[in-house]
Amino acid sequence: MFRPAPSGSGNVTGQPAAASQPSPNLMSLLEPVAGDLARVETMMAHRDVTDLRSLRKAYRDILARGGKRLRPAMALLCAGLVPTRDAAELPDSVISLAAAVEMLHTATLVHDDVIDGSALRRGAPTLNSVWPQGSTVLAGNYMFGQASHFIALTGHARVIQVFSETLRELVEGEILQMHAMHEFQLARNSYFHRIACKTSSIFRVATEGAALLQSFSADRVRRLKQFGVRFGLAFQVVDDILDYTGDQADLGKPAGSDLLSGHCTLPFFLYMQGHPDREMLIADIREASSYRNREPAVWADRIRSFVADVCASDAIRESYRVARGHVDAGLACLDLFPDSEGRRALTALGQEILQRRT
Amino acid sequence: MFRPAPSGSGNVTGQPAAASQPSPNLMSLLEPVAGDLARVETMMAHRDVTDLRSLRKAYRDILARGGKRLRPAMALLCAGLVPTRDAAELPDSVISLAAAVEMLHTATLVHDDVIDGSALRRGAPTLNSVWPQGSTVLAGNYMFGQASHFIALTGHARVIQVFSETLRELVEGEILQMHAMHEFQLARNSYFHRIACKTSSIFRVATEGAALLQSFSADRVRRLKQFGVRFGLAFQVVDDILDYTGDQADLGKPAGSDLLSGHCTLPFFLYMQGHPDREMLIADIREASSYRNREPAVWADRIRSFVADVCASDAIRESYRVARGHVDAGLACLDLFPDSEGRRALTALGQEILQRRT
Repeated sequence: MFRPAPSGSGNVTGQPAAASQPSPNLMSLLEPVAGDLARVETMMAHRDVTDLRSLRKAYRDILARGGKRLRPAMALLCAGLVPTRDAAELPDSVISLAAAVEMLHTATLVHDDVIDGSALRRGAPTLNSVWPQGSTVLAGNYMFGQASHFIALTGHARVIQVFSETLRELVEGEILQMHAMHEFQLARNSYFHRIACKTSSIFRVATEGAALLQSFSADRVRRLKQFGVRFGLAFQVVDDILDYTGDQADLGKPAGSDLLSGHCTLPFFLYMQGHPDREMLIADIREASSYRNREPAVWADRIRSFVADVCASDAIRESYRVARGHVDAGLACLDLFPDSEGRRALTALGQEILQRRT
Repeated sequence: MFRPAPSGSGNVTGQPAAASQPSPNLMSLLEPVAGDLARVETMMAHRDVTDLRSLRKAYRDILARGGKRLRPAMALLCAGLVPTRDAAELPDSVISLAAAVEMLHTATLVHDDVIDGSALRRGAPTLNSVWPQGSTVLAGNYMFGQASHFIALTGHARVIQVFSETLRELVEGEILQMHAMHEFQLARNSYFHRIACKTSSIFRVATEGAALLQSFSADRVRRLKQFGVRFGLAFQVVDDILDYTGDQADLGKPAGSDLLSGHCTLPFFLYMQGHPDREMLIADIREASSYRNREPAVWADRIRSFVADVCASDAIRESYRVARGHVDAGLACLDLFPDSEGRRALTALGQEILQRRT
């Protein structure tokens, strides 16, 4: 049942693209929590995960496809922001939170592949393109179950509540994204609301959850929640920029794929906003859209041309300015915390989010 | 996005079949907890459920399609098995558990429709047949999120852990079911393991969870867990019997649909076991199976003939004997509890499970 579907091509165990691995720069940033990140990996890969061989293999294949482990790293770094007596090791509850956060993120990626029917993810064929669809839904559900299991292990009622709120926000984010498809004239606020639900919610459970588990003061909990929200917004804005400016080898998916599949993101909004003749531009988009279903090749050509126009405009620079604003606002939330190796790592992580190419 | 898919027929808000409503008999059985069941409904239908109109409508449509509310009723009845000072009202945590259990059950039904691609559920068109598939996955995820939210409200770490174990067991049950498809010679044990994961796990979280929330003794918690498991097994066995003996108007789906879609259940196993010439029967099934993909109409005819043979054999009576064994074993677990209106209601519920026609 987790065997390739007859129509499938490729192989889920195929080499993940370089894109999915942490860059050397990111790895050195995460050095302060490398030991704890290894504990997170061990927890996620525990052999008792399930007795069902096919499911265990699917689960491990998905985990082995990697990812930057950025969200668990943020949880670990935040948890260490206030020095404790035994500074050497974080409590198991924080490791569980970090594992829950990464597992939740992975579960959403698996389901996203069903929801948007994409064929490539992290440079490898999506599960949905090689497994029967029911299996992909189930594999995602299993990972949601694992995430719930890890969060339950924290034993912290409020953290568990924040986590369950996140589950619902994630769905709302997906639905907002569906509503917004092929809407080229959305309000900018609705874009930010959508990415807050879809992306920041997981960053937020990582950072706020860590603060709660470490019994930080209410004010510090609030700040770390905001910190997570802001870094999540910046991360998604850069993601949306890279969809315009990145290249397929780095991204593991074709550039311009957002617009091609009807997702209008910040660079496009800013491009429209700064366009000297918006009326004409909108007419142009409408005309192009008429090819979407009946002549997909023409539609793809037109999209490529819009993508080139966006890249040639000020929209990319403006989008980076917005992302930097969120990183700065996030870092300002760390002012309450003493200087430490962890805080410096989070500051550097903000730069890494802005400078990343994948 | 929660609008009917272009290819869809029917209407999710259409009249649910009578099948989905509690029978007058069941309603009178649940009288002792009618007030608390109303609290569960209120909690599930709370207007703050989401700000997104389309999602709220979908959520309410799904809830309005009803169901017997058997699982939450069992949680409520179990919670009342030991008299407390204020016997009039159960604590909010038990109401949250009951809401979580029903929501989890509903979420699995929604996803099942995607996983097995069925067209009818509770007599109404499935969501999957009227919504785009991505929306159905999301609606299910939202309900999983709601269930997690309700269980988090109990604030009871062990109950939350049992709940997250259930999430994983449910997936394992589905996968075991997929593995078992078109396997006509499975061991009987694997059938029971599968339905324990797929069905009993939710009954168990209802009954064990109630015992934990009410701080029953460890022995009573164990007994109520077993009670839930046994009633769940009986419930599923009867479900599988009704798929052979029931009629479409009652069931809301065609009789024989399990076998038609490749699910071999207890009546078929017992029929094979009691067959005078098993070699011939197996050859007959193999021959029939060869039509499955290339001539579905012939396959359907052959299945109808197998279904008639099963119904004419002792297999149905034997299956009922098995179901009754589980109900009796479940009721024996209640011996530790004093006689009460609630205990009598659970005893009667066991009979209702065996006698139900829908």
